[in-house]
Amino acid sequence: MVATLGFVGLGTMGGRMARRLLDAGHAVVGWNRTPAKAKPLVDRGLRLADSPRAVAEAAEVVFSMVTDPAALRGVALGEDGIVAGLRPGAVYVDMSTVSPAATREVGERVRARGAAMLDAPVSGSISTLEQGQLAIMVGGDPAVLERVRPYLLAIGPTITHVGPLGLAVAMKLAINLGLGIQMVAFSEAVLLAEKAGIAREAAVDALLKSVAASPMLKYRGPFVLKMPEAAWASAQLMEKDLQLALDLGREAGVPLPTTALASALYTATRAAGLAAQDMAAVFDVLARLGGLRESPKA
Amino acid sequence: MVATLGFVGLGTMGGRMARRLLDAGHAVVGWNRTPAKAKPLVDRGLRLADSPRAVAEAAEVVFSMVTDPAALRGVALGEDGIVAGLRPGAVYVDMSTVSPAATREVGERVRARGAAMLDAPVSGSISTLEQGQLAIMVGGDPAVLERVRPYLLAIGPTITHVGPLGLAVAMKLAINLGLGIQMVAFSEAVLLAEKAGIAREAAVDALLKSVAASPMLKYRGPFVLKMPEAAWASAQLMEKDLQLALDLGREAGVPLPTTALASALYTATRAAGLAAQDMAAVFDVLARLGGLRESPKA
Amino acid sequence: MVATLGFVGLGTMGGRMARRLLDAGHAVVGWNRTPAKAKPLVDRGLRLADSPRAVAEAAEVVFSMVTDPAALRGVALGEDGIVAGLRPGAVYVDMSTVSPAATREVGERVRARGAAMLDAPVSGSISTLEQGQLAIMVGGDPAVLERVRPYLLAIGPTITHVGPLGLAVAMKLAINLGLGIQMVAFSEAVLLAEKAGIAREAAVDALLKSVAASPMLKYRGPFVLKMPEAAWASAQLMEKDLQLALDLGREAGVPLPTTALASALYTATRAAGLAAQDMAAVFDVLARLGGLRESPKA
Amino acid sequence: MVATLGFVGLGTMGGRMARRLLDAGHAVVGWNRTPAKAKPLVDRGLRLADSPRAVAEAAEVVFSMVTDPAALRGVALGEDGIVAGLRPGAVYVDMSTVSPAATREVGERVRARGAAMLDAPVSGSISTLEQGQLAIMVGGDPAVLERVRPYLLAIGPTITHVGPLGLAVAMKLAINLGLGIQMVAFSEAVLLAEKAGIAREAAVDALLKSVAASPMLKYRGPFVLKMPEAAWASAQLMEKDLQLALDLGREAGVPLPTTALASALYTATRAAGLAAQDMAAVFDVLARLGGLRESPKA
Repeated sequence: MVATLGFVGLGTMGGRMARRLLDAGHAVVGWNRTPAKAKPLVDRGLRLADSPRAVAEAAEVVFSMVTDPAALRGVALGEDGIVAGLRPGAVYVDMSTVSPAATREVGERVRARGAAMLDAPVSGSISTLEQGQLAIMVGGDPAVLERVRPYLLAIGPTITHVGPLGLAVAMKLAINLGLGIQMVAFSEAVLLAEKAGIAREAAVDALLKSVAASPMLKYRGPFVLKMPEAAWASAQLMEKDLQLALDLGREAGVPLPTTALASALYTATRAAGLAAQDMAAVFDVLARLGGLRESPKA
Repeated sequence: MVATLGFVGLGTMGGRMARRLLDAGHAVVGWNRTPAKAKPLVDRGLRLADSPRAVAEAAEVVFSMVTDPAALRGVALGEDGIVAGLRPGAVYVDMSTVSPAATREVGERVRARGAAMLDAPVSGSISTLEQGQLAIMVGGDPAVLERVRPYLLAIGPTITHVGPLGLAVAMKLAINLGLGIQMVAFSEAVLLAEKAGIAREAAVDALLKSVAASPMLKYRGPFVLKMPEAAWASAQLMEKDLQLALDLGREAGVPLPTTALASALYTATRAAGLAAQDMAAVFDVLARLGGLRESPKA
Repeated sequence: MVATLGFVGLGTMGGRMARRLLDAGHAVVGWNRTPAKAKPLVDRGLRLADSPRAVAEAAEVVFSMVTDPAALRGVALGEDGIVAGLRPGAVYVDMSTVSPAATREVGERVRARGAAMLDAPVSGSISTLEQGQLAIMVGGDPAVLERVRPYLLAIGPTITHVGPLGLAVAMKLAINLGLGIQMVAFSEAVLLAEKAGIAREAAVDALLKSVAASPMLKYRGPFVLKMPEAAWASAQLMEKDLQLALDLGREAGVPLPTTALASALYTATRAAGLAAQDMAAVFDVLARLGGLRESPKA
Repeated sequence: MVATLGFVGLGTMGGRMARRLLDAGHAVVGWNRTPAKAKPLVDRGLRLADSPRAVAEAAEVVFSMVTDPAALRGVALGEDGIVAGLRPGAVYVDMSTVSPAATREVGERVRARGAAMLDAPVSGSISTLEQGQLAIMVGGDPAVLERVRPYLLAIGPTITHVGPLGLAVAMKLAINLGLGIQMVAFSEAVLLAEKAGIAREAAVDALLKSVAASPMLKYRGPFVLKMPEAAWASAQLMEKDLQLALDLGREAGVPLPTTALASALYTATRAAGLAAQDMAAVFDVLARLGGLRESPKA
């Protein structure tokens, strides 16, 4: 079933998602804060609209992929926002990692327009996405999910319904806090081994052979030996996710002491000028604290 | 090549190791603080000696597996200790997770007797061991390792030489701090998700499908839904390992902030009366902090 | 010089401040979310207005004292807010502990109306205020401060100009993070001493005689022996202040690891049902973690 | 009552204590690891002995002041140690900040010799001592304390009996963890204020006027503006005290999360090459983390 779909936010992740929708044969109307960046997509048939609202006016289903709750409010609300353009009966799927509070705030406006909203954050990196292996968690009405499932499948093959609107984002934040802390723990382990007399390479190797080696550590752990040219997920993005997790924790009344400490270390990563580096750069903060050399940069 | 081997410390792990040596056809002389516990091994042919020293006097290669640096000094040093009984040219392999400092202290005495020492801590649980899948890291002279490799292979199939004496134990502590922190991070993630409105089972499921799911979390994560009857590795043991990691860090001059915080949480686990539970019981400490129910106990 | 002053937010602190202004002979127009609570002030001559805006319309100088940035925006902005009622040339003095960002946001609207704003958070407790000993830090134009100094002096005798608008609030948050952490450190010290075998009373006594005994600890430390009936500053308020400090830290790019950890402990205090207790109740969270008895409640 | 007293450990603090005993008219026999450093005391009448044991053989009451539990065992135990030389009925007063475990271990040997031991750690800096204002906490038999009280009064005027042997040291560690954390909290507060736009000097000033200003902060806080030439108490000493507090906490089963985190920061201070600086140098570690300039060094 070919449809006219909208996509707001055509950055690193969003652009690749829109491309997969185009490749699946759908008509895609898009919007990006910096339109020039969407040129390759336009070459493949994407039609650029003037505003998020115009995207929504043209589409049956609208997707968005932005960086944080403020950006979500920016594209979704206001006179030129997505909500203002949604057709009755349309579906709005936000794929960003934002906050349950922002998601629900937008969701209420969507419902007031007679449309429906889902939150559908994704798990995985750019390469997972390009290989068509992305996992998508979905919050919202299951019947609405069924209506958009074919389009989501064009983006990624694994779709898990988590609960009502906002809970997919909550689950995503919970997952990401674990990733952020794991990278800190891995760094402390490498540095302890190194300072005890084991070569950094050998320490990384031993850790990645151990039962601590999560899939994330398997790809990101070696970054402490050589940082990639482009961040898979930046330190700044992880700092933001940890902040959102802490905000949600405070709202819900659950203390997250280790997350709080890790959050300070990613802020230190940004303060050290490494905000745009892969989040593995938190290693450098800990290396400096221990008087050890930082990770070699690409 | 069948040999007469010694084994000091026939507890949960040590006993199973000695059994594998017996099963491989070796003569094994053993010692345990509580001799009665070694009954099943005696039934399979192990000969009990009166002291660690007597074990060493009877064997070409002596193994030990005890709980901490104090216990290592207890069985290795002194008039009745292993070192006092070592034959010239013998090899002493300590498989405990202790400290590089304790290992080297014993190692010097061993060398003074004209024998050689290796540290050979293991990675993996009882079931890994029983399935013959244990990974062994070894520190010490590579030539000495070659001499005892056949016996180590009877215990576990994967042997990695890490460096000079003491470094295998250092690497083990580095790995274990990662495991201790991962369990804390996993707990914070589950509790955040739960308090945000996601069922605990669903949260565990989503986390174990994510890129954060290390092999350790794959087997231990579900413990927060139902704690096992017997600890795979107790909270008290993890507290001890984190303390040893912190001590090594201080000695080496490398700060380990997240390890330090996790250490306090495992001490809290012990203070809560859960010392003998699996280390996954640290979840309960965090659950109480957030006003959530603890993990169901077997 | 007797003037007509406005006061928005007549709670525990705000009410007592308004009373001091009345006692100094000024005419005071006030507003409170729950008007009934202002009865004692009305008995002393305060005139209640219908809205924050009406307060501003009636006064030369308007004060406000509310709990957090959201409450500040609630009383200051919008159709019925203070800003909408400010006369040209009027001065608006916010005495709340909010955030520099919220202060500046309101400040811009105030300037747009041709009025001026100061942030003037206070240091000290209810009893300090009642004894006329309150210290006030002020941010904003020094010339504007001179115009309202007489009224501020009626509230408290010590006035320190910190810098441009917003910096007094920033300084206040910095001070309060120190108070929040000190109470945690004091709790850890008492509990360590107690578990080592020293009576809690003796431990408190020794700490309060030591060089660690800040004025805050001198009055709050004994609360772990007997919590006061009414909070001097509640655990929830401290949790809020630490959150604001952390938010400011993230905004400014300065990591605050100890503040982050303390913040989690105050969230745990709230999760334990002690939100309305004095912030000294963080002691109970740590006492429980160590398996020790909580502070006796009034 | 003039007596022959022994003093082992004539360093920065110990030397000044011995001098006060000499000034009070007592005969003092002393020992120092580096005898040359005791020259000024010898000039004032102190007699140097060949070993700690020889000191004890010559004195009715022996004092010691050393840096850590290992140093205490070094001077107290063994063939040439204090215990071996104690006369029956003598009193041994250790004034070091060590650990209750080490104190009790030595105490048992002292009792076995028919002598008595007290632990008597002191609160205060070199200048407090020189002004005759030192506070002394004492653990052990109160009757024994009465016998040595006149000599202790020559060292400092405030003597508080805390409980049985070892508890004075425990109390001292509890006090010191509070000092270590306060300096960290103060640093975070200064850095937050500074990064928010307040001059460092103004921030220090505001903090030292606030209710957070403990006597310790009053003298040490200004060090972040200019570090003293000589440490009042070095970062390394504070790291050691925090480690002893954490060890005691683990032994006693009380988690100390904030102490654990602070401990990592003092280890980082040492890793940054600032071990011998005043403990206020922990400020530099946090300043670097936030990308701010370090404290000016003398």
